[in-house]
Amino acid sequence: MRSGFAFRITHRDNLARRGELATSRGVIQTPAFMPVGTQGAVKALTHRDLEESGAEIILANTYHLHLRPGEGLIARLGGLHRFIGWRAPILTDSGGYQAFSLGERRVIDEDGISFRSHLDGSAHRFTPERATEIQAALGSDIAMVLDECLAYPATPDATRQSMHRTLRWARRCRDRLVTLCESSAPGGVAVTNPGQAQFGIVQGGIDPALRSESAGATVGIGFEGYAIGGLSVGEPVDVMYEVVGATAPHLPDDRPRYLMGTGTPADLVEAVSRGIDLFDCVLPTRNARNGQLFTGEGRLNIRNARHAEDAGPPDESCTCYTCRHYSRAYLRHLFMAGEITAHTLNTLHNVHFYLDTMRRIREAIVFGTLEKLRVAYHQAFSPRSSDS
Amino acid sequence: MRSGFAFRITHRDNLARRGELATSRGVIQTPAFMPVGTQGAVKALTHRDLEESGAEIILANTYHLHLRPGEGLIARLGGLHRFIGWRAPILTDSGGYQAFSLGERRVIDEDGISFRSHLDGSAHRFTPERATEIQAALGSDIAMVLDECLAYPATPDATRQSMHRTLRWARRCRDRLVTLCESSAPGGVAVTNPGQAQFGIVQGGIDPALRSESAGATVGIGFEGYAIGGLSVGEPVDVMYEVVGATAPHLPDDRPRYLMGTGTPADLVEAVSRGIDLFDCVLPTRNARNGQLFTGEGRLNIRNARHAEDAGPPDESCTCYTCRHYSRAYLRHLFMAGEITAHTLNTLHNVHFYLDTMRRIREAIVFGTLEKLRVAYHQAFSPRSSDS
Repeated sequence: MRSGFAFRITHRDNLARRGELATSRGVIQTPAFMPVGTQGAVKALTHRDLEESGAEIILANTYHLHLRPGEGLIARLGGLHRFIGWRAPILTDSGGYQAFSLGERRVIDEDGISFRSHLDGSAHRFTPERATEIQAALGSDIAMVLDECLAYPATPDATRQSMHRTLRWARRCRDRLVTLCESSAPGGVAVTNPGQAQFGIVQGGIDPALRSESAGATVGIGFEGYAIGGLSVGEPVDVMYEVVGATAPHLPDDRPRYLMGTGTPADLVEAVSRGIDLFDCVLPTRNARNGQLFTGEGRLNIRNARHAEDAGPPDESCTCYTCRHYSRAYLRHLFMAGEITAHTLNTLHNVHFYLDTMRRIREAIVFGTLEKLRVAYHQAFSPRSSDS
Repeated sequence: MRSGFAFRITHRDNLARRGELATSRGVIQTPAFMPVGTQGAVKALTHRDLEESGAEIILANTYHLHLRPGEGLIARLGGLHRFIGWRAPILTDSGGYQAFSLGERRVIDEDGISFRSHLDGSAHRFTPERATEIQAALGSDIAMVLDECLAYPATPDATRQSMHRTLRWARRCRDRLVTLCESSAPGGVAVTNPGQAQFGIVQGGIDPALRSESAGATVGIGFEGYAIGGLSVGEPVDVMYEVVGATAPHLPDDRPRYLMGTGTPADLVEAVSRGIDLFDCVLPTRNARNGQLFTGEGRLNIRNARHAEDAGPPDESCTCYTCRHYSRAYLRHLFMAGEITAHTLNTLHNVHFYLDTMRRIREAIVFGTLEKLRVAYHQAFSPRSSDS
């Protein structure tokens, strides 16, 4: 375990865990949701907005920050926290997912991924070592290993081979981090957070046996926490829930478990019920910019004409700044008029809704009522309850 | 004088006036700057941001709100203040300037302006009566008369004829407002703020004699305040200052004077020195979205490469949220990365800078040091001090 990093479970409700994740930059109450700040800012929000929403950790994307402004510049300015002015913990992904998503702009081999920037076509390469070094320069509190992300669906053979490559890469990432942090001048690589933790990533597609094998071998390498990757990539939600449920028991009870890139409010409750502690997803922020608000009654599309003269708030039971001060009518007007402020107010609400969902989840675990909450969210966020 | 409306001068420094403008929705310390909230929101800001910047009044555009969402909807929801959730005073323009700016999409005759919407090409018509009715439905605290806005330069004849038409329209606007507020059910027109004040507008181009004639005749009609229109339309700044200096003395000392659509920080100090009390301008907000920040040292273009690794704030002496929390390096990164948050943080700073300029102006008037402030702003904001 890296210094300053600790995870403690305080309550349980069946498989769900209520805990505290300690980093050198602060404690995160779990289960927790990490708003996505791709380029060092959660889109349309200021850090103050995030703090007031109760965000205790945000996610930043290594691919984007590597391309612009570059980890070298960020390290010279003291690391990502100082550069962006955010004092609480930050998790960085490895950049692998974005690089894989470039399609024809990237080539994968055993040693790593070569790709061309979506910004200017410039050539770049992520190896497990390089992805580790970039994150060391950024100085996030939690770094992720570089994993191979397969498209869904994939053949069993491709899934197995990819899972094994991810294991080899995980080993190299861990070795590189240990070397970086043990040497005082690690070959010109800036290390802006010597206490950085590193999470391994379990792959294996939708095959429980491969997931189990991947989990066992990843845990064998030894990380401060473990993520489940390769889900929310197009598979049916029931399949996703099954894979989560089949994988989590193979991860050590005393380490945090992170389900990457998921999901809807219902997904959060379902995954927590299966033992997950950490989440990230662009849904609350991206949907906000498309006019979709999450409420206790389900999704609400603010563009809908029926909100045009509605003086009520988006969500009667919500205590966010947007719901306390603005009507659906005004939010609809701002959105239809293309005002930037619409993005800010919608995003404020959705992020608050997600973080409030996590507060409810944590409370339900303490009181042993998570199953009730799961049913309520399942009903509110079923596809039929959508206002889109 | 309309009920609830009052203007009191508390200090003088040569021609400059420090005062208090009272409306039924609150007192405005003058000289004051009104951030522009065209469509019912100051672009990229929330009302909370505005309140924290010290904004005591904002401006909204009648043309835009008439087209979308329409004054009828706004009146049904209780008027503009309730619709947008802003409790402090609001000034609405008449819509004339935007309609005139439509070029070939509009036709002007003695009775009014016919124009086609820039949104959907739909046909609309503003007469003096209609512009007054729309603003009565919006329920702003200060309404403006419909005036004819000439392009610069204009011939002396065109300027004189236009000035006289503006006078005839001003008379009709005043008559319509008086009728609306005196009748209990004014012909189906919603009046959401019975205490609405109305300002006349002085025209006359750059001819001191025409300006003097316009001022005298406008004052003869009788309004709660007087604006100087038709400036900042392309004439040299020295000419603008001269016209302001020649016009202000023809306006009653005991009524607020509003210089429309102006200007740079230097313009504010110059105009206050000539007896102006109120301002509005899109410069702080629009320039923020183009990456230009106003600072005590002059203008700063955040895109400039020399800010890329600058850990200092945009303005060392500024106390705004942006300057207290973020570096030039981060703001440059956000801007280059196209983040919405860049618009918010830049706008926050510029609006704060403008409102802080007004605070300094008011203080300087009290202490009799406005001339020193004028020289300082003149030097900081001369064209040669620009970082663009």
